[in-house]
Amino acid sequence: MTDETTGAAGEAGGIAPDALRDETGHVSARWLDGLRDALRAGDIERLSALMEPLHSADAGDVIEALEQDERLALVTLLGDAFDYSALTEVDDAVRADLIEAIPNADIARGVAELDSDDAVFILEDIEPGDREEILNQLPAFERLSLKRSLDYPEDSAGRRMQTDFIAIPPFWTVGQTIDYLRADKDLPDEFYQIYVVDPGYRLLGTLSLDKFLRSKRDIRIADIMNADPLTVPAASDQEEAARTFERYDLVEVGVVDDAVRLVGVLTIDDIVDVIQEEATEDIQRMAGVGDEEISDSVFGALKSRLVWLCVNLVTAILASLVIGLFNATIEQMVALAALMPIVASMGGNAATQTMTVTVRALAMHELDRRKVMRLISREMIVGVVNGAVFAVLIGIVTTLRYGNPGLGAVIAMAMIINMFVAGSAGVLIPLLLNRLKADPAVASGTFVTTLTDVIGFFAFLSIAGLWFDLF
Amino acid sequence: MTDETTGAAGEAGGIAPDALRDETGHVSARWLDGLRDALRAGDIERLSALMEPLHSADAGDVIEALEQDERLALVTLLGDAFDYSALTEVDDAVRADLIEAIPNADIARGVAELDSDDAVFILEDIEPGDREEILNQLPAFERLSLKRSLDYPEDSAGRRMQTDFIAIPPFWTVGQTIDYLRADKDLPDEFYQIYVVDPGYRLLGTLSLDKFLRSKRDIRIADIMNADPLTVPAASDQEEAARTFERYDLVEVGVVDDAVRLVGVLTIDDIVDVIQEEATEDIQRMAGVGDEEISDSVFGALKSRLVWLCVNLVTAILASLVIGLFNATIEQMVALAALMPIVASMGGNAATQTMTVTVRALAMHELDRRKVMRLISREMIVGVVNGAVFAVLIGIVTTLRYGNPGLGAVIAMAMIINMFVAGSAGVLIPLLLNRLKADPAVASGTFVTTLTDVIGFFAFLSIAGLWFDLF
Repeated sequence: MTDETTGAAGEAGGIAPDALRDETGHVSARWLDGLRDALRAGDIERLSALMEPLHSADAGDVIEALEQDERLALVTLLGDAFDYSALTEVDDAVRADLIEAIPNADIARGVAELDSDDAVFILEDIEPGDREEILNQLPAFERLSLKRSLDYPEDSAGRRMQTDFIAIPPFWTVGQTIDYLRADKDLPDEFYQIYVVDPGYRLLGTLSLDKFLRSKRDIRIADIMNADPLTVPAASDQEEAARTFERYDLVEVGVVDDAVRLVGVLTIDDIVDVIQEEATEDIQRMAGVGDEEISDSVFGALKSRLVWLCVNLVTAILASLVIGLFNATIEQMVALAALMPIVASMGGNAATQTMTVTVRALAMHELDRRKVMRLISREMIVGVVNGAVFAVLIGIVTTLRYGNPGLGAVIAMAMIINMFVAGSAGVLIPLLLNRLKADPAVASGTFVTTLTDVIGFFAFLSIAGLWFDLF
Repeated sequence: MTDETTGAAGEAGGIAPDALRDETGHVSARWLDGLRDALRAGDIERLSALMEPLHSADAGDVIEALEQDERLALVTLLGDAFDYSALTEVDDAVRADLIEAIPNADIARGVAELDSDDAVFILEDIEPGDREEILNQLPAFERLSLKRSLDYPEDSAGRRMQTDFIAIPPFWTVGQTIDYLRADKDLPDEFYQIYVVDPGYRLLGTLSLDKFLRSKRDIRIADIMNADPLTVPAASDQEEAARTFERYDLVEVGVVDDAVRLVGVLTIDDIVDVIQEEATEDIQRMAGVGDEEISDSVFGALKSRLVWLCVNLVTAILASLVIGLFNATIEQMVALAALMPIVASMGGNAATQTMTVTVRALAMHELDRRKVMRLISREMIVGVVNGAVFAVLIGIVTTLRYGNPGLGAVIAMAMIINMFVAGSAGVLIPLLLNRLKADPAVASGTFVTTLTDVIGFFAFLSIAGLWFDLF
């Protein structure tokens, strides 16, 4: 995740610089054919010439476009010339299969070259036995720093952080600092601010590079640093860190341990990935899909979906039992069977709309108490108005279709009731789940549509029953 | 979006520095009470003391927490001390109402102080007449640069870009450049790279600040610059720009016009907002909600949802007509009416799962030709397996409930058919819409669930009809 950005395409191997990607933006068949030729010929020089100029994101796309045996051949042939940062850019399933197949000693050599955040990203999914073996083959300093990151909980800021950063004492001048930066070869590849620490690495302040650049050589760092910088606790969730980045438009932030010692830094590129992951998670959870990736196997996909399909089966049977209560009513007029799904379906749709808006607002932390009250009342009013509009429409359609104004009135009444329930449930159920510290995205969909199915069928059939009794 | 980051809370007005936010992270009632007191008393000094230390994101949250008349009073009382960048951090509806109420001359003075990207963000939603009036009150240079940005299409890179940047000639040395940066007071507030241009502002290269800092004073810029930098065309869509940022982990990128002249820069903070917007758009479109915000009025919410509810009404009526074809079958056995929604509901759920995974993968540009084929076959297999699993389950339940193995077999067969159709349609319909250059998120939901409803009802009732005929 750290290579210097060059052009988007390879420039070697006698292939035009723009040939890596075709017009759809995917790796082109022609470029891949060239790589496959080199793979089959075992031509290491040509392989290096093709792969070496690539940004790690492009190299990742190339790896994904290959078959598993080709991927392994590429890594094996390139040996130490293979840049493991490409593996941070591929799907989890692709990475797991490939890592599984590469000897631990090779992985250790590759990981040693990476920035700490990339190394942790690769190591965290390797099973503990292999991981220990790989860590033991790393130099002591790297091993300890990676182990410390891996000790933080999954999805925490400590896991995502980069442990290389520039830390200087407050009594240095701008000139001293510039000289230090020019002299030291062992600095991180990319950095956006300089950290000012005491001898115990407690964070005293930060200095952005642009401010630093604009200051004269004899100015003391302590006089220009931001002495009250935002920080992120290492144990905090990456989502929380992402919110801090978003809210304050940060590019880099210091990560501190319980004793406010600087242990690493988080940069925006990692946070962008977190934001995308969280959005995908929300979208998939609302639809009853687990943490699934496009590269998952059939079995993985089945596993991630079966739970909610089972829940849906139970709730569908529940709705079916409700209908069963009205067998006698349906026998009196079989048209009811054809009409009842309309009421249920409209309620389900309206509820999904309301629920989606609510769940997203909760995920984005947009709702304070005042906005919650406003949202609830808005959604109830929207429910009533939608109910009225569609009651009139479906009432007219039903009256015309069956030549029966009574039946039109029955379905209209059921529609108003169900649309109001849909609006209310769509906003209240996610809020309730959130209050109970459950993820509102996970269960809202099934709960809400079950409710609108049951209410839809019940309202329509019971009103129809009453109407039969009366007339 | 550009203030130097300080602590997250106000530090003035005799209130503890951490009092701005309560434990839920929202603006605290106590802090707001203090502000309201100052507003009522017209105490401009105290208002400034409270608002001035706030980051624009915090100031935005404060404005959102106030009532409309209080917001206007705050802006009016603070006058030129009010920082208009706070308005880039509030909901569209809140901003629109407030801007509407502020005199154009005041807006012009406020906007003149902003970075160009923030100024454009506020100006673009103002109606053309007022916008022209405001622009005409700005200094000529700012007016022209803002007009140029506003001439680019909505949601383009040109609209989002910042037109202040650091551009230097290639023959300067590092030392000359540092001296220039130290001398010029009119530089952008924050910058992450330096642009190297020819006299016609054609982009020759870029230089990241960290590399620049590590280079000695006598080195020529042309020798250390990245001579093949990534750029974004000003007319390209902001989504495309966001993908470039994500793919190559950028923090800042140059925006060029058709003649490859540097016209502005895009920074990651704007891109993070774009990513969140796009995710929200996808989520809401799949649920049949338009570009709606939490702060929209009842009328706004109704408008954004009515279209898809109308479409759903039509498709629900269609499903109802299909059921109507089988009135005679249902009359023979009214239990069919209670069972048929189970088949439809399971298909709808399975299709939504598949569709969600597909739409998200399309939005993230994860699918090349090879992955598309793999996804299609995976989803069809998942459909068949899910169909088999739930056919057995519902077959057993139905047999036990009605003591009728024939009925169990009928619903089991319908379940297999509908789950296979659900899996296939869930992946094929979004892919087809995408191929037709339509947004797969917009229409997939309704199309897919209509299909599974219709197939579900039809398969179940027609198989039941055949079974009656045979036995």
